[in-house]
Amino acid sequence: MLIIPESLIADLVSSEDAFTAVEATFAAMARGEAYNFPVVREALGEGRQYGFKSGLDRSGGQLGVKAGGYFPGNAAKGIINHQSTVFLFDPETGRPTAMVGGGLLTALRTAAASAISIDRLARPDANVLGMVGAGHQAGFQLRAAARVRKFQKVIAWNLHPDMLPKLAAIATELGLPFEAVPLDRMVEADVIITITSSPAASLMSAHVADGTHLACMGTDTVGKQEVEPALLGRASVFADEVAQSVSLGEAQHAVAGGLLDATAITPLGDVLVGRHPGRRSAAEITLFDGTGVGLQDLAVAAMAVRRAEERGLGSRVTV
Amino acid sequence: MLIIPESLIADLVSSEDAFTAVEATFAAMARGEAYNFPVVREALGEGRQYGFKSGLDRSGGQLGVKAGGYFPGNAAKGIINHQSTVFLFDPETGRPTAMVGGGLLTALRTAAASAISIDRLARPDANVLGMVGAGHQAGFQLRAAARVRKFQKVIAWNLHPDMLPKLAAIATELGLPFEAVPLDRMVEADVIITITSSPAASLMSAHVADGTHLACMGTDTVGKQEVEPALLGRASVFADEVAQSVSLGEAQHAVAGGLLDATAITPLGDVLVGRHPGRRSAAEITLFDGTGVGLQDLAVAAMAVRRAEERGLGSRVTV
Repeated sequence: MLIIPESLIADLVSSEDAFTAVEATFAAMARGEAYNFPVVREALGEGRQYGFKSGLDRSGGQLGVKAGGYFPGNAAKGIINHQSTVFLFDPETGRPTAMVGGGLLTALRTAAASAISIDRLARPDANVLGMVGAGHQAGFQLRAAARVRKFQKVIAWNLHPDMLPKLAAIATELGLPFEAVPLDRMVEADVIITITSSPAASLMSAHVADGTHLACMGTDTVGKQEVEPALLGRASVFADEVAQSVSLGEAQHAVAGGLLDATAITPLGDVLVGRHPGRRSAAEITLFDGTGVGLQDLAVAAMAVRRAEERGLGSRVTV
Repeated sequence: MLIIPESLIADLVSSEDAFTAVEATFAAMARGEAYNFPVVREALGEGRQYGFKSGLDRSGGQLGVKAGGYFPGNAAKGIINHQSTVFLFDPETGRPTAMVGGGLLTALRTAAASAISIDRLARPDANVLGMVGAGHQAGFQLRAAARVRKFQKVIAWNLHPDMLPKLAAIATELGLPFEAVPLDRMVEADVIITITSSPAASLMSAHVADGTHLACMGTDTVGKQEVEPALLGRASVFADEVAQSVSLGEAQHAVAGGLLDATAITPLGDVLVGRHPGRRSAAEITLFDGTGVGLQDLAVAAMAVRRAEERGLGSRVTV
């Protein structure tokens, strides 16, 4: 099997690669050729979280699992708190084929998902990109979004304003003017990406103009919340996986509050395969609830394997 | 991280090692220091099964997952049908520490579980070992059982009698007389191990004498069955994990049929830590329902790592 360490990923998998891989996965899910297995997620004590996301994509030939979690004591040891590794297996024989460092891949696949939603659901003439959240992951979201629309400006808000200069530097690198704004100025944005780990809504419905596309990427567990549920009531809601969106995504609150019917949520893959038209009017609010599914991880890991094989990188071991 | 290929396991982990490791795991489970995460088990189509068994043992410092399954098309390709690999992680940091070939380990941990049950629950003077089932795994069960009691004889039955000579050869190697018998002669056995993949009961209650200890090791999924449910009604029932025993182990049938109350099943670990006395009389029938838990896999894999480190075996890679 092929071992691709974390240190090789940045050189192997581009933002474009991740976009291509995740788009193919969402489409395969919509065609019924790929599905995610039940997620295992366990609290280990002392704030440590660990779990396994796995799935099968028949079209892409991917079978595998991402093992990973959050270990808050790591930073003090000089190790990053988020740890993950993707293991791929041959779906025909069950033999392990690759082990791939999963840290950067997770960032890339999360950014790819919001970019795909923007590509397919935002107005073509979207000018202003709003960022709610300015942590490490926000930079990935910004870079991927800038690939799919010719934005003229980035406006951003973060609970801790001292994080904003890092995001501003990325905007500058992309040639985009950047302005730190209060949340109510998000009404100026044509596309808004929320990427926080907030336990309560930051972005209110009044902060969002008609015609906006939102990619809500931060809520991936019970009890997290980024936007006011009324906003989902106003919007056409899309998700990577509807069941997960309802149980632990941003939609959990609107569905529980009776503001959104679970059956009204559309898998983003339905848009990709032409089963759903996507945005219907310039005034419509579209909202993508990105919860993160195992198949995204497998898809970008398989892309890393392809790139590594093309270039003879990584190392081979026998198991 | 350390890579220990399947080919090294036979030289690294003995039957004794597996016994020690699994016994420690069952005890840790009973003390509440170790627990299994939910099992993921998926049908991939064309008879292929795949899944993940995972858990945490705080006492042993083990966090990990066994990924594996059954691929009936493998034999034609010259690969074994059962495929599995164990991945271990540092429970403090989440960093992957080892990848260990899981085929032989699975056989050893399954054999260890039945041997531990015999060690703790069979009569000390047990003379005759009955084997119901004579497939590949039966040999492991026989070898492990022979370590914990001074048996004088092995009697065995298999649905396909042509499999029996292989098991007879192992008995001979262990210095034990061997006799192929019809099922009703299992009444002569003091200890019976069932290790079949039968969809319906083979061993009937009338085939079992008072005072016998049974280790039922074959039923690990809904719809499999090795013994008549009435036998569980007659017996004191023990299990590796009670919840799994009731849902997919041999006890599923007796509990569903109202012949056994789930609350009457004792974790084998309770006997190991002295919370339950084990066998209460020479006439009592004891029955161990061994369903196989992820922590057993992690424990024997961790033992393989320890042995490999002692001897400088395996290879190191960076992930």
